[in-house]
Amino acid sequence: MSAIKIGSTYTHEVCFSQEQVNAFADVTGDHNPIHIDAEYATKTPFGRCIVHGFLAGSVFSKVFGTLFPGEGTIYMSQEMRFMAPVFPDTEYRAVFEVEETIPEKHRGVVACRLERISDGQICIEGKARILHREKL
Amino acid sequence: MSAIKIGSTYTHEVCFSQEQVNAFADVTGDHNPIHIDAEYATKTPFGRCIVHGFLAGSVFSKVFGTLFPGEGTIYMSQEMRFMAPVFPDTEYRAVFEVEETIPEKHRGVVACRLERISDGQICIEGKARILHREKL
Repeated sequence: MSAIKIGSTYTHEVCFSQEQVNAFADVTGDHNPIHIDAEYATKTPFGRCIVHGFLAGSVFSKVFGTLFPGEGTIYMSQEMRFMAPVFPDTEYRAVFEVEETIPEKHRGVVACRLERISDGQICIEGKARILHREKL
Repeated sequence: MSAIKIGSTYTHEVCFSQEQVNAFADVTGDHNPIHIDAEYATKTPFGRCIVHGFLAGSVFSKVFGTLFPGEGTIYMSQEMRFMAPVFPDTEYRAVFEVEETIPEKHRGVVACRLERISDGQICIEGKARILHREKL
């Protein structure tokens, strides 16, 4: 019996500090100065440091693996389109909607996006394919 | 004058330690036990801890932003299909090939994959769209 159906939705709020961005740069080795050098960042089109797309997008993975559907999820694919910069110390909301399920294979296709809470600006838009033996 | 053409390739070797995986879990909040709890992981189909897909995939972002094309890259999109687990303390190679360029827009489409060096097993396969005003 699948708990997650077509049309099921989930939301999760998230905020990335500059300290998290710096730590992400260290753990991944991605020291692109646009993320960690405030003076450099002022000369870019964004005007200030931006969160790594993979740190911002990791909220999708965190939600799938720990919240919705949660433990036991197998991640099959993720698409992300980076539509607008994600800034540190700013509140965002990850929004999920199940678009398709294949119950006999326990698979689902989930639309996911990251939007800025203050004005609804969509920053990342994408789609994931996941597998969960009990919930899909 | 674009430095990067259709058919340009780039490779970058990478290895993720369990300590990096633990640090990634802390910075992203993704504490799915399959990544960080060795005893739990032995009961999963993978038999041992696996690297977060977003940590493994972050090598694509690191290469684009710091090596190929390098500083000044704007990341437009990334698709990733997780084909096989990525294990800690194992050597992988990220392989990039430029499939398409749109010189008047300074954009490129780059096929990228992460393969295990020992046997060539492809673990992540995907495609990125990037923009670089000088190199594309």
